[in-house]
Amino acid sequence: MSKQKLRVIPLGGLGEIGKNMMALEYGNDIIVIDAGLMFPSEETPGVDLLIPDISYLVERKQKLRGIVITHGHEDHIGALPYVLPRLAVPVYATRFARELIMVELKQRGVKTDAKMNLVGPGSKIRLGSFTVELFSVCHSIPDCVGLIIHTPQGIVVHSGDFKVDHTPVICEATSFNQLAALGAKGVLLLLSDSTYAELPGYTPSEGVVSDTLGRIVSEAKGRVIITTFASLTSRVQQVLDVAVKYGRKVFIVGRSMKEIANMALKTGYLTAPPGTICSFDELKSLPHNRVIVLSTGSQGEPTSALVRMANRDPKSRVQIVPGDTVVISATPIPGNETLVSRTTDSLFRQGADVIYSRLAQVHVHGHASQEELKLLLSMVKPRFFVPIHGEYRHLVMHARLARTMGVAEDNAFVLEDGDVLELGPDSGEVVARGHAGVSYVSGLMAGELDEALLEDRRSLSRDGVVVVTVALDGGSRRLAGKPRIVTRGFVDAGAEQSLIEKGQNLVLAALDHDGGRLGDPGFVDARIRDSLSKFLYERIHRRPIIIPVVVEVGKDRTKATS
Amino acid sequence: MSKQKLRVIPLGGLGEIGKNMMALEYGNDIIVIDAGLMFPSEETPGVDLLIPDISYLVERKQKLRGIVITHGHEDHIGALPYVLPRLAVPVYATRFARELIMVELKQRGVKTDAKMNLVGPGSKIRLGSFTVELFSVCHSIPDCVGLIIHTPQGIVVHSGDFKVDHTPVICEATSFNQLAALGAKGVLLLLSDSTYAELPGYTPSEGVVSDTLGRIVSEAKGRVIITTFASLTSRVQQVLDVAVKYGRKVFIVGRSMKEIANMALKTGYLTAPPGTICSFDELKSLPHNRVIVLSTGSQGEPTSALVRMANRDPKSRVQIVPGDTVVISATPIPGNETLVSRTTDSLFRQGADVIYSRLAQVHVHGHASQEELKLLLSMVKPRFFVPIHGEYRHLVMHARLARTMGVAEDNAFVLEDGDVLELGPDSGEVVARGHAGVSYVSGLMAGELDEALLEDRRSLSRDGVVVVTVALDGGSRRLAGKPRIVTRGFVDAGAEQSLIEKGQNLVLAALDHDGGRLGDPGFVDARIRDSLSKFLYERIHRRPIIIPVVVEVGKDRTKATS
Repeated sequence: MSKQKLRVIPLGGLGEIGKNMMALEYGNDIIVIDAGLMFPSEETPGVDLLIPDISYLVERKQKLRGIVITHGHEDHIGALPYVLPRLAVPVYATRFARELIMVELKQRGVKTDAKMNLVGPGSKIRLGSFTVELFSVCHSIPDCVGLIIHTPQGIVVHSGDFKVDHTPVICEATSFNQLAALGAKGVLLLLSDSTYAELPGYTPSEGVVSDTLGRIVSEAKGRVIITTFASLTSRVQQVLDVAVKYGRKVFIVGRSMKEIANMALKTGYLTAPPGTICSFDELKSLPHNRVIVLSTGSQGEPTSALVRMANRDPKSRVQIVPGDTVVISATPIPGNETLVSRTTDSLFRQGADVIYSRLAQVHVHGHASQEELKLLLSMVKPRFFVPIHGEYRHLVMHARLARTMGVAEDNAFVLEDGDVLELGPDSGEVVARGHAGVSYVSGLMAGELDEALLEDRRSLSRDGVVVVTVALDGGSRRLAGKPRIVTRGFVDAGAEQSLIEKGQNLVLAALDHDGGRLGDPGFVDARIRDSLSKFLYERIHRRPIIIPVVVEVGKDRTKATS
Repeated sequence: MSKQKLRVIPLGGLGEIGKNMMALEYGNDIIVIDAGLMFPSEETPGVDLLIPDISYLVERKQKLRGIVITHGHEDHIGALPYVLPRLAVPVYATRFARELIMVELKQRGVKTDAKMNLVGPGSKIRLGSFTVELFSVCHSIPDCVGLIIHTPQGIVVHSGDFKVDHTPVICEATSFNQLAALGAKGVLLLLSDSTYAELPGYTPSEGVVSDTLGRIVSEAKGRVIITTFASLTSRVQQVLDVAVKYGRKVFIVGRSMKEIANMALKTGYLTAPPGTICSFDELKSLPHNRVIVLSTGSQGEPTSALVRMANRDPKSRVQIVPGDTVVISATPIPGNETLVSRTTDSLFRQGADVIYSRLAQVHVHGHASQEELKLLLSMVKPRFFVPIHGEYRHLVMHARLARTMGVAEDNAFVLEDGDVLELGPDSGEVVARGHAGVSYVSGLMAGELDEALLEDRRSLSRDGVVVVTVALDGGSRRLAGKPRIVTRGFVDAGAEQSLIEKGQNLVLAALDHDGGRLGDPGFVDARIRDSLSKFLYERIHRRPIIIPVVVEVGKDRTKATS
């Protein structure tokens, strides 16, 4: 009986930002916290999304009691459309998160039998031998919670994504009383958000952005176009408030911004006097100094409304004119820096004045900095500590912070996805260092990432493809005609002609003096590949992918091999 | 005679960081300032380097009097190996720059007749109707200069890349006396570095890094591995000084770091007591707390020494062990953020303690911030102003600064590459808005960027290539056998088989019921492409590049078309 130990199994979100997913296992019960996605980098060309590898859970399906969602950001809910068809377990989410989950499931065309339970701060969810209690935390989307998880072995606290904000705009402030009471009882394990663990000091309050936006709008002579994250409802509320204060109307562009704002207005997360939000017809008749445009595109996403404006897309409903002020009320997510810079430059080229976070405090982020992390540690006083949600260096920094706050050297664990940590009453041990795989979604396909496939794509993108077709006479085993060469993405048209002609002769020569063995397709393939590849590297230092196609022709049968 | 006007023609470096190159033209004379390269982004797959389009100069070859180099960074000299074979004009460079140019020319295997003239602060170079006077500026490489260019129409000042550093480590401090004297005489035009024009305040002095490095080295119990730009000789000097002070020896790894350090030691730009730099054999026998390793890799370059260490490359001479401290004495160049983050994380995973610019002041950059830019403007007091060296938004910011410093509204010009500005005595006009093309270098090829080619490469990298071969009977105009399908980079092997089988049947069906027209290869190609492309998009939402290969076979002749 007492041999059972609590297992902590991060399936995503540790060592890389995104696709957050954490499993806790005790005896016959497993609960899962969050199921997020991650957007890919140029390292994984052709991949649309990355999601956690859930084979650990699929193998232990009958133990799984439920998935508890901390908040509605895509890196916490976005894997549900792929997870639920394989694991139809109950989901527990707060209201705003549940609305967003429904949107995700609908967008991906997923129907599921999984029950979507509505919970909120104060809810207690019994899941086998676990009881999960929710407490409110402040982050950058409404209805965020942290979790107090009562396990047979002690209390586990999961921070969710959080910051400490005493003057939040929409969130409820992080619920300290509940946490401080726990500290006195004794907490076994704290799992805490590490995204900004390398930043000293405190994260500023969302409230400070109001002042900056107010100043910008009051001074602007023309339209003010503001872009932010569609789900950053508190920022959208501040924009609505500023619009009302300075007598402007708000026109919303961009699919996700419209969808989430409509949902939030309907459900009461956003409030504005009637007439604040205007239609396209109204927009056209309003003087520019009575207008705020609220837009998607804060990350420079190529198909977003703001980028269409920046690129003078004729299909964009809003076109930039000199006198416009554009406010980028967001910072680039790591990896998006170049897209955002390019968008900013294009907006300046169109004659807009662009205000971004380097120039004014038009954004604050939603994660705790070091002093806030210490505050949580000091209240919860956990015996064990596992930093979550962050790149590897953030986890290391956070573990160090925890040690300075009294967690024993050996009790702070920097884990990675797929590791298995087993906690006894006094000591913990990483019993498996299995880096979890990552699953990808490309179009309508999903599966394991195939490194050879990605390497082919990288080669293709560098140097293109060269297809060489040769016809072999089935009777004489000799070439029946000149090889044909077709290329895509290889070199520009000017350079191509002479390379192709020389390549043809080369293939001809390579195949000709060994006529006897041309019956062996593998031999012919290799000859073509080797001779052409050597030639192209010597001539132009490029290594395209070479695809030989050998067509065998004869009186009786024609066969293509490759 | 007086109809002649001074023309300012930026060929590179305006609107994008890198490949800096500026031409000034008056009557029968053209001079060029710098000839730099730029490293490409993921937007230009397969491209190794980008260099300015010099067709404007090639068309006016007989007017070209010389190329004056402001300093030896690659974004100012790196295009010379491609420019000089087409324009064998004299080059004027300071000593350190000239050494680096020689290295570049040698690496690219370029022999040139162009004369490489050695100049320095105080030199006066007569180039047709221009006289170019050099003054020292401080930046982040030795021997940087700005230019005072006497033209028949007035004085032009070119800042080079500069900062104001009163306690520089190697550079000479920026030469203010010379500049202030000019202001009194009257300056026609200032061309000034905009790289950091969005940063308020002053850029810190290079000297402050010494203190941080000293503290880190004195506290480290094990080895200290420091990475920085190979050409940042002042930083290398600080590392040598710290090593001497704390009784450590320096081992240098990485080709470019070794090359430049050796050159700088030989030429006296770097100084160290004998025995400071140690060999690999010495390194192996030294206790860890007596060692500093100086390494390339500050930008996370995949083949650099530091990245090899981070990835436990068995061929790396230095392997990370717990107890090592790694100092990243640089910040990521825009676009390199992800590479640097990944390297940092990998170093932490190996057990190193990593110190980077977010955690301590281990780097200062080499460009002027707003207050320094104002200082230059206030001394030079130009009538006209053109911001140079920066992305578009930096140029806009810098032009604004200039206006606040007294340059007339219409006399500050935000130009882009390929524009032609003509200056009269009182007013200027942009007489051509021809965005200059960009030339690329890929392997041994160079030419104009071909957008269709790049788009093909992007498609290939997303969804791969599908080659469909069909054999057509030349006599009956019917298919002679089943179509063959080969793919690369398309989908993983598991998904491929069934898609290929279905695709084969589909192509068969598409070609079969229209047998009469199969004689027209264009028709066959289109049928294959359309039917397969539609099928694959419907089935898996992907759009690979489809290459049909039609082989015509018959009694008399076999011909492949495509």
